[in-house]
Amino acid sequence: MKFGGTSVADLDRIRNVAMRVKREADAGNQVAVVVSAMSGATNQLVKWVNDLDPLHDPREYDVVVATGEQVTIGLLAIALGKLGVPARSWQGWQVPIRTDDAHGKARVDAIEGAALLADMDAGVVPVVAGFQGVADGERVSTLGRGGSDLSAVALAAALRADRCDIYTDVDGVYTTDPRIVKRARKLERISFEEMLELASVGAKVLQTRSVEVAMKHRVRVQVLSSFEDKPGTLVVDEDEIVEKLIVSGIAYSADDAKITVRRVADRPGVAAALFGALAEANINVDMIVQNVGADSTTDMTFTVGRADLPRTQDVLAGLKDALGYQSVLADPAVVKISAVGVGMRSHAGVAATMFKALSEKGINIQVISTSEIKVSVLVASDYKELAVRALHTAFGLDGPEPAAKDDDE
Amino acid sequence: MKFGGTSVADLDRIRNVAMRVKREADAGNQVAVVVSAMSGATNQLVKWVNDLDPLHDPREYDVVVATGEQVTIGLLAIALGKLGVPARSWQGWQVPIRTDDAHGKARVDAIEGAALLADMDAGVVPVVAGFQGVADGERVSTLGRGGSDLSAVALAAALRADRCDIYTDVDGVYTTDPRIVKRARKLERISFEEMLELASVGAKVLQTRSVEVAMKHRVRVQVLSSFEDKPGTLVVDEDEIVEKLIVSGIAYSADDAKITVRRVADRPGVAAALFGALAEANINVDMIVQNVGADSTTDMTFTVGRADLPRTQDVLAGLKDALGYQSVLADPAVVKISAVGVGMRSHAGVAATMFKALSEKGINIQVISTSEIKVSVLVASDYKELAVRALHTAFGLDGPEPAAKDDDE
Repeated sequence: MKFGGTSVADLDRIRNVAMRVKREADAGNQVAVVVSAMSGATNQLVKWVNDLDPLHDPREYDVVVATGEQVTIGLLAIALGKLGVPARSWQGWQVPIRTDDAHGKARVDAIEGAALLADMDAGVVPVVAGFQGVADGERVSTLGRGGSDLSAVALAAALRADRCDIYTDVDGVYTTDPRIVKRARKLERISFEEMLELASVGAKVLQTRSVEVAMKHRVRVQVLSSFEDKPGTLVVDEDEIVEKLIVSGIAYSADDAKITVRRVADRPGVAAALFGALAEANINVDMIVQNVGADSTTDMTFTVGRADLPRTQDVLAGLKDALGYQSVLADPAVVKISAVGVGMRSHAGVAATMFKALSEKGINIQVISTSEIKVSVLVASDYKELAVRALHTAFGLDGPEPAAKDDDE
Repeated sequence: MKFGGTSVADLDRIRNVAMRVKREADAGNQVAVVVSAMSGATNQLVKWVNDLDPLHDPREYDVVVATGEQVTIGLLAIALGKLGVPARSWQGWQVPIRTDDAHGKARVDAIEGAALLADMDAGVVPVVAGFQGVADGERVSTLGRGGSDLSAVALAAALRADRCDIYTDVDGVYTTDPRIVKRARKLERISFEEMLELASVGAKVLQTRSVEVAMKHRVRVQVLSSFEDKPGTLVVDEDEIVEKLIVSGIAYSADDAKITVRRVADRPGVAAALFGALAEANINVDMIVQNVGADSTTDMTFTVGRADLPRTQDVLAGLKDALGYQSVLADPAVVKISAVGVGMRSHAGVAATMFKALSEKGINIQVISTSEIKVSVLVASDYKELAVRALHTAFGLDGPEPAAKDDDE
């Protein structure tokens, strides 16, 4: 059972988490718990560190920010004890959760589960600090923001858990963002692969790396609400999904920017020089399209993370003489919309359905990219809601019209 | 160098501490630093723990409250790095600072200084978390409130430091409380024994156990201000004090209550039964006086900590039949005033001077107790300031009249 920051935001919510853990224990389940810091705590700690020195030693950053989870494991162990559930807190170095020494964004190398399993066999609930581990030289390390999901999944794998329940402030994974599409439906099941594609295009229910680890170790993950009592969405191996939908969800990401390099020489090596230089500058390029022109030049269009846009323009400016292009156009006002589904592996026509639905609404597609279980299009950001709704309907994902709700709900 | 909570209360003060450490390092000194939590942080953590469960597991209490110091060591290491002073943080378990398993008030068993000394030889300043250590089973432990002083002194002993500088919000040890006596003087030097007696009667500049450890290991301690640039008070071995004052300070404690058991049978075993029962209830009895009456009864008067007064009355009520006393009188409105000085070992007449000075002001002495270097009297609490001033003058401790200060200083 993993509880995020909003689920342990204050003492009342910590008591609520303790009740949920007690219920599982009373039902005869052996449980281990992973918790995040109280919401807001980590941000305060990060701010102090950056105010003192933006170029701080990342090892000391980790020492400071790891305290947030240390507070909640102690408090939750005490809240459980108060309910008569024997519990003990575990910091990363105590388990130990061994990581590499990439402080601030460390990778989990190994988790020794023996001590925790012994506690669980003795009826003691281990309460483990998420987000943190221990690196070489017994230094405290952290896994990067959202790392508590990864802690939970990696621990579930180490303990060979039947399931890893991720309690959060949403009650599952939806066919699309319910704030945009009222008729979005909660999915009962979704495959690891689909979850990965959805996470990577902006449906930030689970941290991407945690899904990768779950897939690798076949850890069944459930995403559910810590504030309501109903089942969430199971993230499982594709084999466990009987009815494979062609498209199971529509996701969007507004974190991209589009770059067009106009009238660059159309000769071998140009693309390699351009994208090689960007890779060297550690800039991730996502969608790429190349229009062959009538003369011996071409337009290269691609997307980068919006935060990387200024650096990308710098790199391109430095290449102007070498590549001999005419100009660079940058457009941050774009949104990437993706249809994701494992069923599309065996079905043609997904892209065609997508283009038709968008063209019927008069939406121009700027760039297209496809992967085995995903088709993505780049459109002007003004069309975000319209495009998401059109595709949700076109792929038959609309659920029943929701009942009217009070405004203040 | 040890810095208390008010000295690291915010980022500006942490920067100020870093400057002070840099100055020592620049002067060619090898320094290790011990810090407390930012002031207020520990109180917040303690409150959370007690709100969840007043009868919490003390091991989990320690996990939670130890985070305060973990935050400051990381922040100070970063602030030092920013100034170009290589530094590294050390938590209790990393040093390690081994303690017994009396969680919440653990005793330091051993400190392994080798790793810290190696860092110092390499020019790296160790920044060590005060107040915390590691107990059996690699569980985090804390030393009890004020324990950072103890951490600093014990670490200074382990590192065979030339001196342990305790930076705090006062600039040294005074002949008495300057808020009561304007002409109180800062002492240049004071012996461990005197410091111990002053600490135990309420001059809370240094935690009592830290002075005991300093005395045992002959660690020279300096108490000085982290906000001003001037020498403080050296706490040293008696041999280092050339001019031994008969009385070096007047201290007071308002934490006591007086109990009188009226007309108890004056026969052997009665005192043993009374004080034995109190000891069994873990109630510390301090001053004791017995007045023999004309008949076969006596009045027993003694003091206990004021917080223990209700429990003391309960214990005595339970003894009424066995002891056959007439009544119990309780008076919390008392104050204990003590004259302390190593010089009184070789000088008679301290008590006489004290009684004369108090009687000249019309102050009635209720109870008296003496030790080798201390004479204490119990008086009605209304007379606190008057008595302290009278004794300060009587023992020749008054300094020059201070210069007038602005009201808002």
